[in-house]
Amino acid sequence: VSGAGDLEGVVEGLVGSAVGGDRRALARLLSIVERGGEAARTLSRVVFPASGGGYSVGITGAPGVGKSTLTARLLGLLRASGKESVAVLAIDPSSPLSGGAILGDRVRMQEHTLDPGVFVRSMASRGALGGLSRAVPEALRVLDATGWPLTIVETVGAGQVEVDVAGVCDTTVVVVDAGWGDAVQANKAGILEIADVLVVNKADRAGARSAARDLEQMLDLSAVSGWRPPVVSTVAESGEGVEKLLAAVEEHRGHLESSGERERARDGRLLAELQQLALARLVELVALLGSSDSGIGTRRALAARELDPYEAADRVLVDLAGVLP
Amino acid sequence: VSGAGDLEGVVEGLVGSAVGGDRRALARLLSIVERGGEAARTLSRVVFPASGGGYSVGITGAPGVGKSTLTARLLGLLRASGKESVAVLAIDPSSPLSGGAILGDRVRMQEHTLDPGVFVRSMASRGALGGLSRAVPEALRVLDATGWPLTIVETVGAGQVEVDVAGVCDTTVVVVDAGWGDAVQANKAGILEIADVLVVNKADRAGARSAARDLEQMLDLSAVSGWRPPVVSTVAESGEGVEKLLAAVEEHRGHLESSGERERARDGRLLAELQQLALARLVELVALLGSSDSGIGTRRALAARELDPYEAADRVLVDLAGVLP
Repeated sequence: VSGAGDLEGVVEGLVGSAVGGDRRALARLLSIVERGGEAARTLSRVVFPASGGGYSVGITGAPGVGKSTLTARLLGLLRASGKESVAVLAIDPSSPLSGGAILGDRVRMQEHTLDPGVFVRSMASRGALGGLSRAVPEALRVLDATGWPLTIVETVGAGQVEVDVAGVCDTTVVVVDAGWGDAVQANKAGILEIADVLVVNKADRAGARSAARDLEQMLDLSAVSGWRPPVVSTVAESGEGVEKLLAAVEEHRGHLESSGERERARDGRLLAELQQLALARLVELVALLGSSDSGIGTRRALAARELDPYEAADRVLVDLAGVLP
Repeated sequence: VSGAGDLEGVVEGLVGSAVGGDRRALARLLSIVERGGEAARTLSRVVFPASGGGYSVGITGAPGVGKSTLTARLLGLLRASGKESVAVLAIDPSSPLSGGAILGDRVRMQEHTLDPGVFVRSMASRGALGGLSRAVPEALRVLDATGWPLTIVETVGAGQVEVDVAGVCDTTVVVVDAGWGDAVQANKAGILEIADVLVVNKADRAGARSAARDLEQMLDLSAVSGWRPPVVSTVAESGEGVEKLLAAVEEHRGHLESSGERERARDGRLLAELQQLALARLVELVALLGSSDSGIGTRRALAARELDPYEAADRVLVDLAGVLP
């Protein structure tokens, strides 16, 4: 059993190694983030002051639209330009609700595994409240602080998860394909809300042109002020259009930086993280209080209909005040 | 401006009228539930002691599988048997995430609008945290306390919403159709988790038999103890199989009542409601604290990277302790 001082020493040692280029140390740091708990908290404290300069690009969309292939192509292009190292976080939404484990198409990523300027890592979004949205920003800060100035976050769009990712990345790319207009559940308004760049992939297939037109028309109708998401057509399999996609992402980055929006958005995300952390602690405390004597009494009174749910909730808040710092 | 006493008087008056069969009064009560706030809280207190005996059946499934038609058929069958009055709550998941507003197929319900033993009401699940899961149990208690012993809750399955509905109803019916096995996003494991009765609708179409077989095989493989969800094939359009569906629902009800599970589940749901109410209050308080002097100071220190998110969250909890009752 190691004390708090030891924990900090171990974490600082790993961070130092990761900064020096040790990928196994970096992988261990990201495992710490994934697991959460006291070590993750220590890691957060260690890397936070050194973070803040990194840029993140989220790539989301329904299963099968070609996100992994597109991500691999972008990686290839970025590395060919020789500009910077690139990390990829591939998010597995393994919650029972989102289908999960459909992210099989990681094979194309493997051609980059020998490149020292590329780091690829899968992360599962297990765990309850805000699992993904808590772990991903921490992971981005770890990457940022250890020498990875650009991270691509790839995730299967599955309702809440895609919105969460939009909430943590600087630029969000939403990928659809030719068939998107037909799907009853295609959440068109939601897609426009989160997208900074829209991609119609598989642009060589029938229907792709009308999908792109459809998106442009929706953008015409929506009240966009400031940045209008460009619609880029790509064929990820052949690489067609991927330069245009990269240019669109860089244009959005330029827009964020020149308008001061990048700072504002980052401060807003930190605030959201702060509130989520506070609420996660409160959820734990409320659950714990349920097993206290007072909590059991409240539940009994509720079941006996002596207290209504609102009155019972008031009692929980009174109990909570007694256990807060 | 009316005081608290007046509010209670108005709410009690409406409840009295609704008990006497006044449908407009009942509709107003459900609007109060939908809007939330102080009036909803008063209503909750008024009806809570008189509630608890009502039975609720949730019907959920993807858009287009025929839930509305099935609900209308069930209504017809229940009313033909002359046994009891039936209320229907049709949930519109109008959150930006779930697609919403696809519940157009309410026409078939209209043949029941002149029947004094039927009450149909749509509810929107607008609002943030737990909007639907807070409003629906309150609405069920209002119906229960005003003379509606059986309520069918119909909702489009859209991830979280369908799980929420499973959390509030005594019996949950999950409807699929012949094509369900093909859908990449069909959340098979999740469906089995929430279903008490499984329906393969459009059973006259190709693939329905294999869909039913597929479900039975999944049930064989899953570790079910106690109740095994029956798989019922229906053709809602013609009414075929709807008697079997009703029999399956009644069998599940009998199982819950004879095993004592109904009480246990109801107490568990009350506890979940209680915790959710407490957390909703905490979410509000945490958001409010963000605008306090101390909250603004915390945010600035966070943006300046003088505090990490965990340390900042600790400060929020300290501030919270100061404003709790």
